[in-house]
Amino acid sequence: MPFFKMDFHERAIFSLILPPMKIALAQLNYHIGNFESNKEKIIRAIQKAELEQVDLVVFAELAICGYPPLDFLEYPHFISRCLESMEDIATHCKTISAIIGGPAVNPDPKGKNLFNAAFVLSEGKIKQIVSKTLLPTYDVFDEYRWFESNRTFNCIELNGVRIALTVCEDLWNMDEDPLYTFWPMEELIRQQPVLMINIAASPFNYKHNDDRKSILEKNVRQYQLPLIYVNQVGAQTDIIFDGGSVIYDEKANLLKELNYFEEDYFICEFDVAKSKIQIEDSIIVAKNEEVKMQRIHQALTMGIRDYFSKMGFKKAILGLSGGIDSALVLVLAVQALGKENVHAVLMPSEFSSDHSISDSLDLVKNLGCSHEIIAIAPMYNAFIESLKHDFEGLPFNVAEENIQSRIRGTTLMALSNKLGYILLNTSNKSELSVGYGTLYGDMCGGLSVIGDLYKTEIFVLCNYMNSVKEIIPKNIITKPPSAELHPGQLDSDSLPSYTILDTILCSYIEHANGPDQIIAEGFDAALVNRILKMVNMNEWKRFQFAPILRVSPKAFGRGRRMPIVAKYLG
Amino acid sequence: MPFFKMDFHERAIFSLILPPMKIALAQLNYHIGNFESNKEKIIRAIQKAELEQVDLVVFAELAICGYPPLDFLEYPHFISRCLESMEDIATHCKTISAIIGGPAVNPDPKGKNLFNAAFVLSEGKIKQIVSKTLLPTYDVFDEYRWFESNRTFNCIELNGVRIALTVCEDLWNMDEDPLYTFWPMEELIRQQPVLMINIAASPFNYKHNDDRKSILEKNVRQYQLPLIYVNQVGAQTDIIFDGGSVIYDEKANLLKELNYFEEDYFICEFDVAKSKIQIEDSIIVAKNEEVKMQRIHQALTMGIRDYFSKMGFKKAILGLSGGIDSALVLVLAVQALGKENVHAVLMPSEFSSDHSISDSLDLVKNLGCSHEIIAIAPMYNAFIESLKHDFEGLPFNVAEENIQSRIRGTTLMALSNKLGYILLNTSNKSELSVGYGTLYGDMCGGLSVIGDLYKTEIFVLCNYMNSVKEIIPKNIITKPPSAELHPGQLDSDSLPSYTILDTILCSYIEHANGPDQIIAEGFDAALVNRILKMVNMNEWKRFQFAPILRVSPKAFGRGRRMPIVAKYLG
Repeated sequence: MPFFKMDFHERAIFSLILPPMKIALAQLNYHIGNFESNKEKIIRAIQKAELEQVDLVVFAELAICGYPPLDFLEYPHFISRCLESMEDIATHCKTISAIIGGPAVNPDPKGKNLFNAAFVLSEGKIKQIVSKTLLPTYDVFDEYRWFESNRTFNCIELNGVRIALTVCEDLWNMDEDPLYTFWPMEELIRQQPVLMINIAASPFNYKHNDDRKSILEKNVRQYQLPLIYVNQVGAQTDIIFDGGSVIYDEKANLLKELNYFEEDYFICEFDVAKSKIQIEDSIIVAKNEEVKMQRIHQALTMGIRDYFSKMGFKKAILGLSGGIDSALVLVLAVQALGKENVHAVLMPSEFSSDHSISDSLDLVKNLGCSHEIIAIAPMYNAFIESLKHDFEGLPFNVAEENIQSRIRGTTLMALSNKLGYILLNTSNKSELSVGYGTLYGDMCGGLSVIGDLYKTEIFVLCNYMNSVKEIIPKNIITKPPSAELHPGQLDSDSLPSYTILDTILCSYIEHANGPDQIIAEGFDAALVNRILKMVNMNEWKRFQFAPILRVSPKAFGRGRRMPIVAKYLG
Repeated sequence: MPFFKMDFHERAIFSLILPPMKIALAQLNYHIGNFESNKEKIIRAIQKAELEQVDLVVFAELAICGYPPLDFLEYPHFISRCLESMEDIATHCKTISAIIGGPAVNPDPKGKNLFNAAFVLSEGKIKQIVSKTLLPTYDVFDEYRWFESNRTFNCIELNGVRIALTVCEDLWNMDEDPLYTFWPMEELIRQQPVLMINIAASPFNYKHNDDRKSILEKNVRQYQLPLIYVNQVGAQTDIIFDGGSVIYDEKANLLKELNYFEEDYFICEFDVAKSKIQIEDSIIVAKNEEVKMQRIHQALTMGIRDYFSKMGFKKAILGLSGGIDSALVLVLAVQALGKENVHAVLMPSEFSSDHSISDSLDLVKNLGCSHEIIAIAPMYNAFIESLKHDFEGLPFNVAEENIQSRIRGTTLMALSNKLGYILLNTSNKSELSVGYGTLYGDMCGGLSVIGDLYKTEIFVLCNYMNSVKEIIPKNIITKPPSAELHPGQLDSDSLPSYTILDTILCSYIEHANGPDQIIAEGFDAALVNRILKMVNMNEWKRFQFAPILRVSPKAFGRGRRMPIVAKYLG
């Protein structure tokens, strides 16, 4: 019997009799396709909750296999493994219930074969399956690639409580220019639920947490129900899930915010008679005043740490040029992996300035990691000698510059291959945008750590990190940026100031503005046209680049798919 | 007045009075985002048709901007350019009509902002817009990323002829396990059209032409209407459109098949009274008995040619190892670009066999292209000397092998940078699958020519090409494959025979079979598990690989998206 049908008086009586429903939020870090490890993690949380008399534990979207499983979903064998795992877990849900995300088979031969579903496990079995209706297919998301959109709507009922259970995007169609033509909560609300639960895999970017809370609050205000929201945490290659699961009361007050960038677990009580959520500890202060840079810092270290731990790697290597980019990556790597696991390689050439070496050595000393110096001259001279017939009479140009960069890439990869290091890439978003980098040279590496940060953001981040504890030598931050590939070279020789460059790039890349709009923002027309042309013409380089830890709303990589052979603004 | 309402007698009379409707199929090769060139090409076809008293010219899906424009569609500026182009073209359609694919703005604030539409241009203006309902979002397709699915259905009427106009996938939901829950033709047929026209951007793979014809025939049989189908032709980076536009009569007889792998243009007549299509020349023999290898050969040469011509490049370079893969790519490059535009570089090491050089020289002589020999020993020795401190006491392994490969990559890129060549990659699908290649070494290159061909398919293709004209020296085809990176090395030292390997790979990659199914096909369990693990563990390498000319139903690249950090079968 659903309790919402009782009048106030009856409720008051029941309130005295009925114990509250205890609901646990399990915010975990999953490993894609690692069914044993995910299952074990989930069962451990269920068993812990059971000991604490919890009635229901809620896990994230596609928790069973980790999000995003991408085209593994096209493998029937993979789907079977998901279902076997779910059934195993169900046998642990006899006196407790669980909600766990996983792919479900679409019984209808029409439409795609899968749903992105929330499985309700209870009484030792899969009791109900609730599927996702709104399938994000934009930016880094491809859900309509694998899933059919759900069109049947049923609340679930656990411990006599009627719950509107939805999956992530199903709560997100609240915009004035709505992306979808359907509103799942409008269907569910007709069945008069008393609580909303949403399971999510909502990735971090530096503005996403605000967007997320704003959307969740809009839902609570619209439907006037308390909301429990459980997100995934942990990095999945380039995509970083920040956790931050939340509980709202029916007035859209934030009752609880789980930790960011780490696993977390929390129990709340749902007063069955009053249809209200209770939190044992007093109402906490929301952490949303955390600064952008602090979050980016946490995201990047988690991104490195999870890449290594989930791949089974321990040790990182990188080339330390004396510039700010590689300095920042080195600090992040040491913070993520420990100084004993990070090796810095200095590879000076005849064009390297003295301070490049001395600044690098200062940084290495501050960090306490290992380093070595390998001069590239012998290899460079060998190449130039071998190519002299072809290069004869032609001026020094990008060819010689790139040889230097590729010798460095090859040297780092040789150490990586011989000694078991993983090479971290140090390119930034500004240079990736305009193609100011050498493919197979400084663009080498298994993971791009700061490829989603513009140069100007890198300065801000370094200053922020130095403000916490001074690690990066001041000179590295203050000297003019240079690739040091020919005598006296400075970035400013061939590029505008980074303040101007980054503003134009951000307008084009993040805001999808065209040249006319960007020029109207007050920039020189020839400069704007030149920059946009450079961005478009260098798609072929970015296509072959490493996965980039995503921290902005529009990162290069999976989230931005552009033709290589094209002639638009180029 | 629509003529289908007339009885037989009336029709017979009108048939004497009414001239037939002349319809031209314009199968063109578009350049993505090159609005001027696409517009000029379209207007030229319209003007030619007008001189020939054509009533309607039909162009392909998204012809206005080229298919696939990918995330350029997220740029309002790009959409404006599409619409301006369409309006310009409309002014050329005063005495003639045209159907042209382009993105249309969704007037409803709900749903995505665009439709993938067919614009009907007539009377000097955009007369009607018909939008696509079924949005392919699988394999290389991402249409729901940008487009809303259409839900309003209206036939168009031109010259008194009621036409069911659809866009590509709208005719493709004929499977027993249908991918969509909607059938656009079922809606349109209620309005009693007398002719179907479908505009498409349907890319080549070696079995797709048969699938395509089968689907089109099913539609004709289902709706008993003649069908005019216009496809795009030309390569768009990795995706190759083969053209092959067709005309069917209402009994599903193939009346005409336009050329494959080249632009083509054809006029048919629609007898307005009889609702039948007439072809002036006698019924042609369908070309579908063309062999798989011939088509792949055409696809690859067009893929190279279009990559170069659309990017504004002329000259190609590649490393010639003496093996079959680089030999094949060299032949294809010479056929696509001309012998005067292709340069082969032989880069022997101490591990290279004599026949590697002599076979390569024989091939170069057969082709008449330029070549040079650069020994890698000086660079190799310089690296080994510089790394001796780190390598000391450790055995020769993959590190030294990869150094050789990366020196070759750097050498080729140096020549490319200095002399303006574009480096063609020579990796095959078998080695890409299992990671048997060096990232930043032999995996370098702007375009992968044969990365969608398994090694066994490469042998067949080379033999086919030699059967037409003997070009590739026999010894290159018959000798045992070797990377020649350590003394006496053979591929078979670390891999099973290619016949076995490729069968396992194809079962896993093309057919999405799991390990249990593949083992059940009769392969050794340990071998299968080892191979599948290698495929999954090398996702990080393929992620950084060049775009691959797609010739199979499941190519690496945009059509197969896998997590890098994962532990499934690994």
